[in-house]
Amino acid sequence: MAKVGIVGSTGRVGNLLINALVEDTELPLGAVHVCGELKRELPSGVLVTNSMQTLLENCDVVIDFSAPEATQELCEEALKNPTPLVIATTGFTEHQQNLMLEASKEMPVLYASNMSAGIALLKQLVEQVSRTLKDFDIEIVEQHHRHKVDSPSGTALTLGEFAAKGRGLELSDVRVSGRDGQIGARSKDEIAVMALRGGDIVGRHTVGFYNDGEFLELNHTATSRETFSKGAIRAAKWLIAQEKPGLYSINDCLGI
Amino acid sequence: MAKVGIVGSTGRVGNLLINALVEDTELPLGAVHVCGELKRELPSGVLVTNSMQTLLENCDVVIDFSAPEATQELCEEALKNPTPLVIATTGFTEHQQNLMLEASKEMPVLYASNMSAGIALLKQLVEQVSRTLKDFDIEIVEQHHRHKVDSPSGTALTLGEFAAKGRGLELSDVRVSGRDGQIGARSKDEIAVMALRGGDIVGRHTVGFYNDGEFLELNHTATSRETFSKGAIRAAKWLIAQEKPGLYSINDCLGI
Amino acid sequence: MAKVGIVGSTGRVGNLLINALVEDTELPLGAVHVCGELKRELPSGVLVTNSMQTLLENCDVVIDFSAPEATQELCEEALKNPTPLVIATTGFTEHQQNLMLEASKEMPVLYASNMSAGIALLKQLVEQVSRTLKDFDIEIVEQHHRHKVDSPSGTALTLGEFAAKGRGLELSDVRVSGRDGQIGARSKDEIAVMALRGGDIVGRHTVGFYNDGEFLELNHTATSRETFSKGAIRAAKWLIAQEKPGLYSINDCLGI
Amino acid sequence: MAKVGIVGSTGRVGNLLINALVEDTELPLGAVHVCGELKRELPSGVLVTNSMQTLLENCDVVIDFSAPEATQELCEEALKNPTPLVIATTGFTEHQQNLMLEASKEMPVLYASNMSAGIALLKQLVEQVSRTLKDFDIEIVEQHHRHKVDSPSGTALTLGEFAAKGRGLELSDVRVSGRDGQIGARSKDEIAVMALRGGDIVGRHTVGFYNDGEFLELNHTATSRETFSKGAIRAAKWLIAQEKPGLYSINDCLGI
Repeated sequence: MAKVGIVGSTGRVGNLLINALVEDTELPLGAVHVCGELKRELPSGVLVTNSMQTLLENCDVVIDFSAPEATQELCEEALKNPTPLVIATTGFTEHQQNLMLEASKEMPVLYASNMSAGIALLKQLVEQVSRTLKDFDIEIVEQHHRHKVDSPSGTALTLGEFAAKGRGLELSDVRVSGRDGQIGARSKDEIAVMALRGGDIVGRHTVGFYNDGEFLELNHTATSRETFSKGAIRAAKWLIAQEKPGLYSINDCLGI
Repeated sequence: MAKVGIVGSTGRVGNLLINALVEDTELPLGAVHVCGELKRELPSGVLVTNSMQTLLENCDVVIDFSAPEATQELCEEALKNPTPLVIATTGFTEHQQNLMLEASKEMPVLYASNMSAGIALLKQLVEQVSRTLKDFDIEIVEQHHRHKVDSPSGTALTLGEFAAKGRGLELSDVRVSGRDGQIGARSKDEIAVMALRGGDIVGRHTVGFYNDGEFLELNHTATSRETFSKGAIRAAKWLIAQEKPGLYSINDCLGI
Repeated sequence: MAKVGIVGSTGRVGNLLINALVEDTELPLGAVHVCGELKRELPSGVLVTNSMQTLLENCDVVIDFSAPEATQELCEEALKNPTPLVIATTGFTEHQQNLMLEASKEMPVLYASNMSAGIALLKQLVEQVSRTLKDFDIEIVEQHHRHKVDSPSGTALTLGEFAAKGRGLELSDVRVSGRDGQIGARSKDEIAVMALRGGDIVGRHTVGFYNDGEFLELNHTATSRETFSKGAIRAAKWLIAQEKPGLYSINDCLGI
Repeated sequence: MAKVGIVGSTGRVGNLLINALVEDTELPLGAVHVCGELKRELPSGVLVTNSMQTLLENCDVVIDFSAPEATQELCEEALKNPTPLVIATTGFTEHQQNLMLEASKEMPVLYASNMSAGIALLKQLVEQVSRTLKDFDIEIVEQHHRHKVDSPSGTALTLGEFAAKGRGLELSDVRVSGRDGQIGARSKDEIAVMALRGGDIVGRHTVGFYNDGEFLELNHTATSRETFSKGAIRAAKWLIAQEKPGLYSINDCLGI
């Protein structure tokens, strides 16, 4: 039976992944990668290692909720030992992104800045509304807990990219991350992506479309991080059934 | 040049329609139907009548923001004198609905419980989300000003129908309009359509999809009734160009 | 050292209470009351009983997150063996409410339909806004997970009572729990308390005040049930320091 | 009978002020100040002038919805000819603020960045919540139409000041207006004031308080600019009855 390896096992979602997988009869846990020390017990037979190579040798699919550097090492090692990869890390440099693309030519790679079904669908809706309601101004707001270190969230940036795509724009050309002072009227094409922080909020994203007389606001709220761990496990089960290398998305996995 | 006739000219939207049409060089105002008295001035050459027959004889397309009885009379007369009809009235009996359907076999009829572009698109999104995220519970909330006499709004019921359609259900079988007492856990299929009233709110509609771990909420807010008058005029201009009888929607007019 | 007893130990919040109290060095767990069987382990020395009398004999303060019948039995037994009671159960009959009042003449009783600090403060704000902005229409919406059996929530009813109090009204005279059909314009005094259900939502309450030209909406969202368990433990620690019998609230405990 | 003068008569709210005052039997319009030309008709007897001095000589109270430079000139002239001033302009320099303070030593001056009753009350609630729930993170979001030139709104900054005051902080020390990049976890004291722009939104302000387990969000939405014009007229009527010079607020006028 196929076994799964985890990168980022000491994080919040990593912990939930372990909880779910030790009880999963369909996709058991084979190995976990740690940088330092894992402060929890694991069932006997699960390998704990700080070597990516050893991890890859001991599993049939990897789920990665870590940091850009760890994902980089994972991709580098996987190019030597191709294994299906489910990657949920965000904040990559261009070099790291290219490395992931390279990996996807040798093995199936599913990348998503957010593993929930709702966000996967929301991306499509956002592109559709952006394309259909061309006169509407687009503004995005995301909110996460007080401990999050990067802003805006990877998911908010992805939503912004889909919004920009619906208008034939590049997000990097039109993104605004704050407004302060006598800055003048809003320009037609700009897309604000504003980041709020506070409390223990798991994740809220609102994409708004505003015109004279009316507006539409599409909101996604994650009420529990299990949305992410369960979504990643669903993705891993789907990915090991894919025979061709390629860069897949949650939408491929959900068939939407 | 084609001229437009208005039914419901003394209402809030009727008033905005007159304001916009007296300045419209493309679709001038030809006639207005009144039940009692019209307490405002009109440009010379605009006919004021309490006869639907006379109205229809003096215009090339009708915009109707009135009440079910007036729309019924309009349809009856239009069957004798076919004229494109843009109908925005809500709260029909089954007989009145059938009459509108009959009319649509003889002339182009565009019916929409809401003339805004945003609501037209939202209906599609709601059906799409309902179909894709089958495990999510659906709840709808609408809010209007304190003077509104019917609940829930026609728009909220239309949104509920699209939500039900995405699940292969009939809204009338699953609609809930209030919850009070020890009523037990929510049933899987039920769709609440709750009506809030207060202040001068033009129109807010939220369709929510709720699952363990995440939810999606799609909100439309009308910030001004001009959304409805401008949408109806856009629809009238499009409808006079249609050559075949039929029942059309705002979505046909917008090409979405 | 004072010990705490739990009624409602098999519920969701009961479970969180046990988790928190087994690690609490200030207020250790003394006894838990169960109806059937407790399917989890407890530290040695904690008494498990299905007798309220035994429970009361083995603790210095009780926290009750149960059902009206169990709370009734608790109050009846406590009248024979006075012990400070923190009660968070909702849905009482008038008889049960009177019993709790009677108990509060013999011992300190802290009753709250919601143990969070935010709700305690919100009640005050709601009364204040209701009193100050007398022309504004009041509407309340609450949302909870799909398993909740009573509607509206006890918290929403409490908020409605504070809203009514600000106008010198009784909630029972003006409460509306649904709107359906040609029901006419909103009456000045009515207060809707609408209940939405879906997914795993812990608790959302919005009290809105609507007037021509503007509205205010005050929202409280619980992101985790630990808000309730932690609030109840804070209340229990405070209550054992109270020397006089009486009916206390979270606001007394927070000093607001 | 006392007459009112308007500064900023060609703006959106200025226009609504004129509409309301020409029908006001209690406080008729005496004079309007214009920079360029006034493109609308006024009742006979209303003076139109581009001289602040002439304006002040022809009215008993001034309502000012203009720009910082015009307000500066108004204050300078009013120091020579003391007249009650209702000032709703925002975006002052420190020098201009001091000038207004100086004026308020010679005449009654009511200053408010927002003339609505709801905002006046919200400021108090925000300070109260900030003081009571000290552990909660504070974040503010405002949204206005696409034509607004200054960010954040004066109202949002005022709300931020009341939030900061509840913690014994100065807003200028803790305000954040955007977040972008690997900026690290949120600091305890920071208060984000984020500005969204789009469509024809009159004004939305949300002050959020976020903690582990729960959050409170207080939202004010203006649905029509008449909120501001009517609030300013109510303020002017109240201000002419004040006998002492001083700097007053809407809260003084409302007695809250």
